[in-house]
Amino acid sequence: MASLADNEAKRGPVAPDALAARELVRTATASREELVEISLDAIDHRDADLHAWAHIDPSHARRQARSCGSAGILDGVCIGVKDIIDTVDLPTEYGSPIYRGHRPTVDASCVSALSRAGAIIVGKTVTTELAFTEPAITRNPIAPHLTPGASSCGSAAAVADGMVAIAIGTQLSASIVRPASYCGVLGFKPTLGTISTAGIKPASATLDTVGVFARTVDDLALAYCALAPPEELQLAELARPPRLGLVRTAQSDQADTSAHDVFDLVARTVEQAGGTIEDRVTSPPLDALPHAQECVGTYDMARALSHEQLHAPQLLSATVKAMIQQGLEIGPGERAAAITLRDQAAYALPELFGRCDALLTFAVTGEPPSRSSTGDPVFGRAWTFLGLPCVCLPGGLGPNGLPIGVQLVGRHGTDQKLLEIAKWVIQRLPIHNTGKSI
Amino acid sequence: MASLADNEAKRGPVAPDALAARELVRTATASREELVEISLDAIDHRDADLHAWAHIDPSHARRQARSCGSAGILDGVCIGVKDIIDTVDLPTEYGSPIYRGHRPTVDASCVSALSRAGAIIVGKTVTTELAFTEPAITRNPIAPHLTPGASSCGSAAAVADGMVAIAIGTQLSASIVRPASYCGVLGFKPTLGTISTAGIKPASATLDTVGVFARTVDDLALAYCALAPPEELQLAELARPPRLGLVRTAQSDQADTSAHDVFDLVARTVEQAGGTIEDRVTSPPLDALPHAQECVGTYDMARALSHEQLHAPQLLSATVKAMIQQGLEIGPGERAAAITLRDQAAYALPELFGRCDALLTFAVTGEPPSRSSTGDPVFGRAWTFLGLPCVCLPGGLGPNGLPIGVQLVGRHGTDQKLLEIAKWVIQRLPIHNTGKSI
Repeated sequence: MASLADNEAKRGPVAPDALAARELVRTATASREELVEISLDAIDHRDADLHAWAHIDPSHARRQARSCGSAGILDGVCIGVKDIIDTVDLPTEYGSPIYRGHRPTVDASCVSALSRAGAIIVGKTVTTELAFTEPAITRNPIAPHLTPGASSCGSAAAVADGMVAIAIGTQLSASIVRPASYCGVLGFKPTLGTISTAGIKPASATLDTVGVFARTVDDLALAYCALAPPEELQLAELARPPRLGLVRTAQSDQADTSAHDVFDLVARTVEQAGGTIEDRVTSPPLDALPHAQECVGTYDMARALSHEQLHAPQLLSATVKAMIQQGLEIGPGERAAAITLRDQAAYALPELFGRCDALLTFAVTGEPPSRSSTGDPVFGRAWTFLGLPCVCLPGGLGPNGLPIGVQLVGRHGTDQKLLEIAKWVIQRLPIHNTGKSI
Repeated sequence: MASLADNEAKRGPVAPDALAARELVRTATASREELVEISLDAIDHRDADLHAWAHIDPSHARRQARSCGSAGILDGVCIGVKDIIDTVDLPTEYGSPIYRGHRPTVDASCVSALSRAGAIIVGKTVTTELAFTEPAITRNPIAPHLTPGASSCGSAAAVADGMVAIAIGTQLSASIVRPASYCGVLGFKPTLGTISTAGIKPASATLDTVGVFARTVDDLALAYCALAPPEELQLAELARPPRLGLVRTAQSDQADTSAHDVFDLVARTVEQAGGTIEDRVTSPPLDALPHAQECVGTYDMARALSHEQLHAPQLLSATVKAMIQQGLEIGPGERAAAITLRDQAAYALPELFGRCDALLTFAVTGEPPSRSSTGDPVFGRAWTFLGLPCVCLPGGLGPNGLPIGVQLVGRHGTDQKLLEIAKWVIQRLPIHNTGKSI
């Protein structure tokens, strides 16, 4: 931890958390323009190494700071938007040469919602090519030779590096949860369908979910309130310590020793702080969901790119082409069977949760791997498919001093409650009690 | 019937069915160019009264006919595409003045799929404003003072009038099933997710489904194969007469006497032809689904239009604005409860189907109403929400000699089987045994 904190001290300008930023503006301690300059400075200082940003337009950012009149809940907060999400005022290239210089005519709904809340959109963050798994240029801010995860790599890295307080991404399998874990920040994937995906380059209508990266739970909540009004702004203190269900699905042997150690550490910490931990037994449909989710995702992504296959196949990478081919070989019947399995697993959810307030599960298989891959999304698949809200929080450090996240999963639609539980847990973890965020 | 057939004889050029068109091309009996001229002539003759088309580009249609080299399964088949679906080569205005002259940069996936299959896209058919329920200018081809239904009104009318053999629409509640019934054609809403919605103006990722209008079941199957490869091209004869479950949900008292009469007539006909009819009991979650589906649809549509609300509210109609307002008042918690109800109803589907091959249900509340509304979508809601494949077929005529459809609903992913059953049923209905299609 000490070395990370030292690094932070050396690295120059860092954007304040969103909650702090809006307070600075409200009390006229800092202007929106000054806050924008901090983000732009940070990017200027460090993005030549990090490559978190696909497009930055300083004058557009400054214009937003000047013109933002109303005191929305994200007033003065600088934000990054994954480049798979349409913006009128900034190029939107979806990580693909097919869309070089592309300018959509309409902002995505989530972008309109953020703007309406007073957020300043600093730029577009790097996505992998068309949100597939081919590694992009973004580095992991903690260890440049390792992957930041995918496909929302730029958003996670920009927040982890302190260039912005909040960044928006999307998750089809684990593209919020995995980069959050690898970069040591918080990732929040709200309940499927709560936040409109209109204006996001479609990959799968069944799976695509808008999510948020931030460094504090309060900032996740702020972003969520802006994206999903009329939700309540204020997170409440829990009335009693939470009851968490420990869920180890059939895939848990894919987590390495360090992931198991961090998982156990978090569970122990919750118990020692007065919370309740209960082992929950998974159902056969739930255990089979990761494979079924992969089937649906691959089927859908392959067909969502029909235009590109027909008109610009030479501009698709070999990785993307291979995944499309794989998806086209899946028939509608196989996809339908996967959906039926999801319905069965969904029906068994009340039993899985039992009396628990949320589930504690793996987020990743371990520390971030090398940049030759983007890591394994296995532990995101089932919960994305079920549409349940998930928070990834840094649970501890692995043998190389790198962050390993754990995942809290809530009941359908209990997003605010889940954030309150996440806040309770995180306040009690040793990794967050150093006076410094990871 | 006699009067409708007489009308048909008088009305000039009529596009041949898709199956016939591709046979004409295959045997060099007619050229693709000649087939395009029939559609263009029909539109030229009658669309000034019907208003089924939002955009027609004859030279683009002729160019497709000339350049189409490969013998795809829709070779030479003229098609209409609902103007909520993106096309690069034709304007895409979503029925809204906000998008006057809009030209997307990418074809929707379903458009690419149709083009790849050799279809000739003649033009864009009228949609209601942003696919909401405000009546559009399209007339019902059978009775001009009545509604053709919504929101895929132009597609249904163009097929019913014989301007094209096949047209594509979308359904969020009942926008395939209802216009099909009102215009007296066949409507097919495949299993949710089978056909990619990429490139369709998003209303609800949870509900939006691409569907097809045609005059024969074989043509529905042709279009489905083009849209959802690698499905089989050929519909098989049923090995035995079908076993159909009669489903009267709690909403069935909203169907008028004529709708009940047609429903009973179809059931009786199936039994007399050797099929089996079984009364099926609905579950409380299923009976509550129409209301829950409306909640999700309204929530989603309101949020999908964030950009338009923020930047062009003056160009939204009062109807659309009111529905958006209604949607914004629904919270994420209410939406989540609706999804949980859907999961419960989905789980009870095996019991609902029992040993039946498909369900027979209401499609509409009765004959088409006047043009001041677009009719009631109530009987589409539950099945759209559950994502089940549905076929609306003209079951009989009401007291005013106007068509009334019934709806066949299949198990998830059994689209081809459902079409085979629809073909079996339709061949035995008196309305289809006059030697003329309705």
